[in-house]
Amino acid sequence: MTSYLLDHPRHLVSLSFFADRYGAAKSSISEDLGIIKQTFETQGMGTLHTVPGAAGGVKFIPHASEEEAHKFIDNLREQLAKSDRLLPGGYLYLNDILGDPRIVNKIGRLFASVFTDRKIDVVMTVATKGISIAYAVASYLDVPVVIVRRDSKVTEGSTVSINYVSGSTKRIQNMVLARRSVEEGSNVLIIDDFMKAGGTINGMISMLEEFKATVAGIGVLVEAEDNSEERLVDEYISLVRLSEVNVKEKHIEVEEGNYFKYAKPLKIEE
Amino acid sequence: MTSYLLDHPRHLVSLSFFADRYGAAKSSISEDLGIIKQTFETQGMGTLHTVPGAAGGVKFIPHASEEEAHKFIDNLREQLAKSDRLLPGGYLYLNDILGDPRIVNKIGRLFASVFTDRKIDVVMTVATKGISIAYAVASYLDVPVVIVRRDSKVTEGSTVSINYVSGSTKRIQNMVLARRSVEEGSNVLIIDDFMKAGGTINGMISMLEEFKATVAGIGVLVEAEDNSEERLVDEYISLVRLSEVNVKEKHIEVEEGNYFKYAKPLKIEE
Repeated sequence: MTSYLLDHPRHLVSLSFFADRYGAAKSSISEDLGIIKQTFETQGMGTLHTVPGAAGGVKFIPHASEEEAHKFIDNLREQLAKSDRLLPGGYLYLNDILGDPRIVNKIGRLFASVFTDRKIDVVMTVATKGISIAYAVASYLDVPVVIVRRDSKVTEGSTVSINYVSGSTKRIQNMVLARRSVEEGSNVLIIDDFMKAGGTINGMISMLEEFKATVAGIGVLVEAEDNSEERLVDEYISLVRLSEVNVKEKHIEVEEGNYFKYAKPLKIEE
Repeated sequence: MTSYLLDHPRHLVSLSFFADRYGAAKSSISEDLGIIKQTFETQGMGTLHTVPGAAGGVKFIPHASEEEAHKFIDNLREQLAKSDRLLPGGYLYLNDILGDPRIVNKIGRLFASVFTDRKIDVVMTVATKGISIAYAVASYLDVPVVIVRRDSKVTEGSTVSINYVSGSTKRIQNMVLARRSVEEGSNVLIIDDFMKAGGTINGMISMLEEFKATVAGIGVLVEAEDNSEERLVDEYISLVRLSEVNVKEKHIEVEEGNYFKYAKPLKIEE
């Protein structure tokens, strides 16, 4: 049952389903669920919510404890501050971090943990770097992912294309999204790996307007200071923040993002 | 312990680690591991391998049973055969399937199950569509992912670039990979969503030669018939196979791929 619940987060599972699946009485299923709930909570992984009634059951609500989040983000800050990550133009090499499924899954659980109370139908990101994080978040929220591209490909079918202005370089850029990928009225969580002025994310917001969809939230792994002017995006959640990048002296300073302003303790039912 | 093992597949975990973590005696840990092993096996999810000795412990080996694989692949065939997927040029719209984390995770477990015996250090794919499957496979194999791109970006750092000939259109194309992403001598599993003549996968093989790395295996979700000439890639594992695509009559026929030639029953220790 533990692994079934972990595989189906935020999904209501009835006691009869488990009783049939394991050929056990509902009373012993219910007892075992109590133990699982306790284990999830002790481990800080999440909890089980019980929905009473005939159409009821249990739901696994994933969570990351504040302690776990602090530990993880501190470690991330350390890894990001290594000077050999620094690339021309003040960009950071992130491929190794974004390529590690264990790190990516943890990032996913952290974001799922702060966004779990919101109504979210789909996670959206832009190719290529944000994709792994978007899938991890979507896995924990049990919703699909849609990917915005810079170029239109035949395999997308008909697409909606918009122009947007990149925040830092002020260049006009293009992004496309398959027409059938987002339904009208959807609540969309935007996830990306990196945000400077916020031009790309602003582009995704404009794209969602075309689809008459709503922005349910914005999560970015790394936010960078942008001195040139004010940020194009207001409300977002970041795990870490590059406060100083000195290309000449190969020095990077990484702070906590605004994540802990939004992180809440796990709501536990008695 | 169940969720820890699920999160760290193919990773040796010592009994003392669990004993410390849960403040329990090794004997009761060992007893519980016996129950977990049995549950994994009954559910067809995998098994626990025991490594004896002082440096020993247990390893979770993920697996998909043949019954589960048949059920999943049959369902996939049905979904793929829907005529509204058909795009100009005989391509198929796959975004909805590749965007569903639950489906993608299952595909990942199926591939991990056939490749688990091989020595694999890293999973490689090409942007954009193969990425979600590659991460799912890599999660189950507990190895990192590297992504080949069509265009070089500043955030990749220095890259290796090669030209290759696309199998179906015979056009010369370009792919790039960040220089620091693959170590010399690595064993690399290539994963992609779609293979026609195999030009792109052949390109990835050439790329690996540049990195002095070895191809440990090739997995594709959908293989398509290519009548024009022989396939450029010999040994690969596919889940499904498009045997007929008739754009005019909007008819798609989808068969099982060669997956079951490679799928083995789970090796269970007594």
